[in-house]
Amino acid sequence: MIKSSVAPVFWDDERSRLQLVDQLALPDNYVLLTMESVNDIAHAIKAMIVRGAPAIGITAAFGVYYAAREAWKSHDKAALIRNAKDLLAQTRPTAVNLFWALDRMMACVEKHISDATPDAILCEAKQILKEDYDMNLAMAEHGADAIGNVKNILTHCNAGALATAGLGTALGVIRAIDARLKDNGESLHVWVDETRPYLQGARLTSWELMQDGVDCTLITDNMAAHFMKQGLVDAVIVGADRIARNGDFANKIGTYGLAVLAAYHRIPFYVAAPSSTFDANMATGDDIVIEERAPSEVVVINGKRIAPDGVKARHPAFDVTPHQLVTGIITPDGVLRFSDK
Amino acid sequence: MIKSSVAPVFWDDERSRLQLVDQLALPDNYVLLTMESVNDIAHAIKAMIVRGAPAIGITAAFGVYYAAREAWKSHDKAALIRNAKDLLAQTRPTAVNLFWALDRMMACVEKHISDATPDAILCEAKQILKEDYDMNLAMAEHGADAIGNVKNILTHCNAGALATAGLGTALGVIRAIDARLKDNGESLHVWVDETRPYLQGARLTSWELMQDGVDCTLITDNMAAHFMKQGLVDAVIVGADRIARNGDFANKIGTYGLAVLAAYHRIPFYVAAPSSTFDANMATGDDIVIEERAPSEVVVINGKRIAPDGVKARHPAFDVTPHQLVTGIITPDGVLRFSDK
Repeated sequence: MIKSSVAPVFWDDERSRLQLVDQLALPDNYVLLTMESVNDIAHAIKAMIVRGAPAIGITAAFGVYYAAREAWKSHDKAALIRNAKDLLAQTRPTAVNLFWALDRMMACVEKHISDATPDAILCEAKQILKEDYDMNLAMAEHGADAIGNVKNILTHCNAGALATAGLGTALGVIRAIDARLKDNGESLHVWVDETRPYLQGARLTSWELMQDGVDCTLITDNMAAHFMKQGLVDAVIVGADRIARNGDFANKIGTYGLAVLAAYHRIPFYVAAPSSTFDANMATGDDIVIEERAPSEVVVINGKRIAPDGVKARHPAFDVTPHQLVTGIITPDGVLRFSDK
Repeated sequence: MIKSSVAPVFWDDERSRLQLVDQLALPDNYVLLTMESVNDIAHAIKAMIVRGAPAIGITAAFGVYYAAREAWKSHDKAALIRNAKDLLAQTRPTAVNLFWALDRMMACVEKHISDATPDAILCEAKQILKEDYDMNLAMAEHGADAIGNVKNILTHCNAGALATAGLGTALGVIRAIDARLKDNGESLHVWVDETRPYLQGARLTSWELMQDGVDCTLITDNMAAHFMKQGLVDAVIVGADRIARNGDFANKIGTYGLAVLAAYHRIPFYVAAPSSTFDANMATGDDIVIEERAPSEVVVINGKRIAPDGVKARHPAFDVTPHQLVTGIITPDGVLRFSDK
């Protein structure tokens, strides 16, 4: 039985408010933030209080409900909701789940625009949350079947419960593999890339694996090749922020290099992603827009500069991995294989 | 004319003391520490106040002189000096320059053990310092000839003036290429890997390049592949801590992965190292001992934990790159090519 004690997004029915785990405060502090407005929600996405492609989509879906609720009695509610949707769409460019969720919510708004209450809009957001969890559950089982009996798996960034409705995409698969091994008295060991510059691996992945009792070791991103060479990595699994029709995909910066290293060492390289991450409008990865974030996020760690004052830095937040380097994309419906690897 | 305004090791003739730039205080503070004893010197190497394979060797050479000076009037001066040499040898295991310098100094001690003063021992240490600088000057020219007309070069860790008697190994070559381009009104651009966990790239390489007016951009280690794919890296150059007879070499953790990525993108990959870095006793890189440092150096940055309390971590400080991935090893005598790459 796979499970996770961790989730990043909660709907509080009593107060009718969205609550988010402040992922900037983890792992030292577990803080629930209550969202009071669409602006709060847009800020939470932009500032990476909530992050992870599916979790961003879910959060934005509730944002549309907030907008609907505020606008419902107004004459131009459609325009007001559209404005809020535009605000939410401008938070982060790379994860397609955001746009997918907004489109789905706007279709629901259109359908129910004449309802007496916006309750149907809330239902749709809740449905997106629930479906995401169910997709993770399905992916976990498909992924564990496909990857099979491995002892050491490496992951990058946080494609975990904290990035989704729960369980996680890549970490859902990892939880399933670990659960199966534990049924046989064994257990999985996970190499966790710290994932500079934002350290999602160090801060979030190691935290949620430790919460759930999954054995893991933190490494710097540049150690992965060394452990691969020593035969200590049996498979790599990551999440995705956007997948093109040909299987090319965007994910956290460092993923592409990891895929090249896995191919060189003949180590299977898997991606786990729900249907909301597939972008049918993109033929290949070349079309994907890569978010360039503030260089200060590279130069400053925990409020302290690590490099000389005035140093130039770059911060592409994502990179694109071509499908030729991917062994399989684990989806809720099974495993897609785009290459002969 | 290539030059550098930076050096890490100074002999103060007036006070007869060794002075080291505290590389843990850079880039925020430039502090010269005066070494009062062999213990001070051993501590400075172990704690990475001074680091970089050639600079460690030079520092240890002066350490032997400190021991000789203290022991010279004693009956068992040979034994006392040997004890000090053993202490220095136990500071760090991977850089062969340390052992090379200690052996050379002990040969000098043996030859001059009956001298009235230990002045010859001091001369030998100064000679090691001077030769290292001269070797860097020769490498810089050979390297610039071999690498030719590039606009973007990537380097890892700090194989710079701060790691040597001055100029640097890899950064000496970079200074020479930049100087040649500047003679033509152009300039070189350097991608600086931050080099986790110790951040030598962020703290030291970007600092010394900025000191000398070399255009550079700091990136996280996991961004290298992304910029390689975009055609923005024309060559990679790194230093080395130990080179086996077949050309396999140990260098800062992350070097091996970078070499694999360079090979995949068909980008020339060069190593620059003085003769003191070659270890004739090692047939291949498989024989090289990799220093495993404290996991806390991964988990704590600037005094603050970046991961949950109690997280497991690994910290191999070096990795080994096989010669097949190396385009050429730049030495003071020319460029060695071990493969057909």
